Amino acid sequence: MRKGTLLVLSGSSGVGKSTVIAQVLEHRPDVYFSVSCTTRPPRPGEVDGVNYYFISREEFQGRIDRGEFLEYAEYVGNYYGTSMTVIREKLEKGVDVLLDIEVQGAAKVREKLPEAASVFIVPPSFEELANRLRGRGTDSEEKIRQRLDTARREAKEIKYYDYIVVNDTVEHAAQEVLAILTAQDCRTQRRIDQIEGV
Amino acid sequence: MRKGTLLVLSGSSGVGKSTVIAQVLEHRPDVYFSVSCTTRPPRPGEVDGVNYYFISREEFQGRIDRGEFLEYAEYVGNYYGTSMTVIREKLEKGVDVLLDIEVQGAAKVREKLPEAASVFIVPPSFEELANRLRGRGTDSEEKIRQRLDTARREAKEIKYYDYIVVNDTVEHAAQEVLAILTAQDCRTQRRIDQIEGV
Repeated sequence: MRKGTLLVLSGSSGVGKSTVIAQVLEHRPDVYFSVSCTTRPPRPGEVDGVNYYFISREEFQGRIDRGEFLEYAEYVGNYYGTSMTVIREKLEKGVDVLLDIEVQGAAKVREKLPEAASVFIVPPSFEELANRLRGRGTDSEEKIRQRLDTARREAKEIKYYDYIVVNDTVEHAAQEVLAILTAQDCRTQRRIDQIEGV
Repeated sequence: MRKGTLLVLSGSSGVGKSTVIAQVLEHRPDVYFSVSCTTRPPRPGEVDGVNYYFISREEFQGRIDRGEFLEYAEYVGNYYGTSMTVIREKLEKGVDVLLDIEVQGAAKVREKLPEAASVFIVPPSFEELANRLRGRGTDSEEKIRQRLDTARREAKEIKYYDYIVVNDTVEHAAQEVLAILTAQDCRTQRRIDQIEGV
């Protein structure tokens, strides 16, 4: 029985990761996109249970204590975490899973589920990233500088990822993520158990 | 400067590898398909310089002696070989290269060019392979049995390949090879030198 492929996606803050993911899911509605829990307040337009599960710090802490997270991390003052049970269940059923996680969380997933593949999405250039963050108009200039510093630090972690996708255009980046999903499914260590009689 | 990706394709004899490759090249006319040299006589419809360079045993031996092959091997009584110079030149220019090689040759390529990725194309089942070989109508029953024995031996080498593609339909197999080509291009060790300023 074919197990699902787990693909971890990280990216510099403001790189347009959510848009890329939305486009990937449009092409592959069979893929389960794992919705993270967070204690940060929703941005305008974000929907609970779609973008994130928005929960309180108290609730988050309780789940940490009960060991319910595959990974969790604090990032720019807020908690982000991924539920373990749901993901294992999907993979066992043969469903491919996409995880949107920042770099600390991705490191923990690699540790706990070494069969996962990981992708880091980068902007075409650092200047472009600054422009996009300012263009979004949701953050103060101080917050933007904080995000850019974080992006610089995160860039040092890129080497631990299996793949790098440059978000020059959303369509191109999404096509690359889709190709990576397909290629991962073809990897010998996964397929060798499935082929018989050859 | 982006270097080309080298993808090695092997497959059980009669699995329909040439048809899959033709379809891949139709989608990606920018990819250079390395034409091998062989001492075996052309099959009906095969064209010199397209399917193979058909050369004499004497000429082949001369090229071996001058070290002109990336790999060469004897297979069912005939020589097959790949020219080193052309491939290096294409890769340096940033052109992706597809190599159609049997298992012994693929092992040598992995040794000499470890950055190459390799794909093994398998039939949906062994019975299906036998049917396809008989349906082709170009080989005697003895030759077919010889090919099936070779296919059984080759199957033991599959584990050394990076990817396995099942040729259930040509379109599906070609899509998987195309995805693998794209994914290989996204691999971190390749891209990390290309991204700057992030």
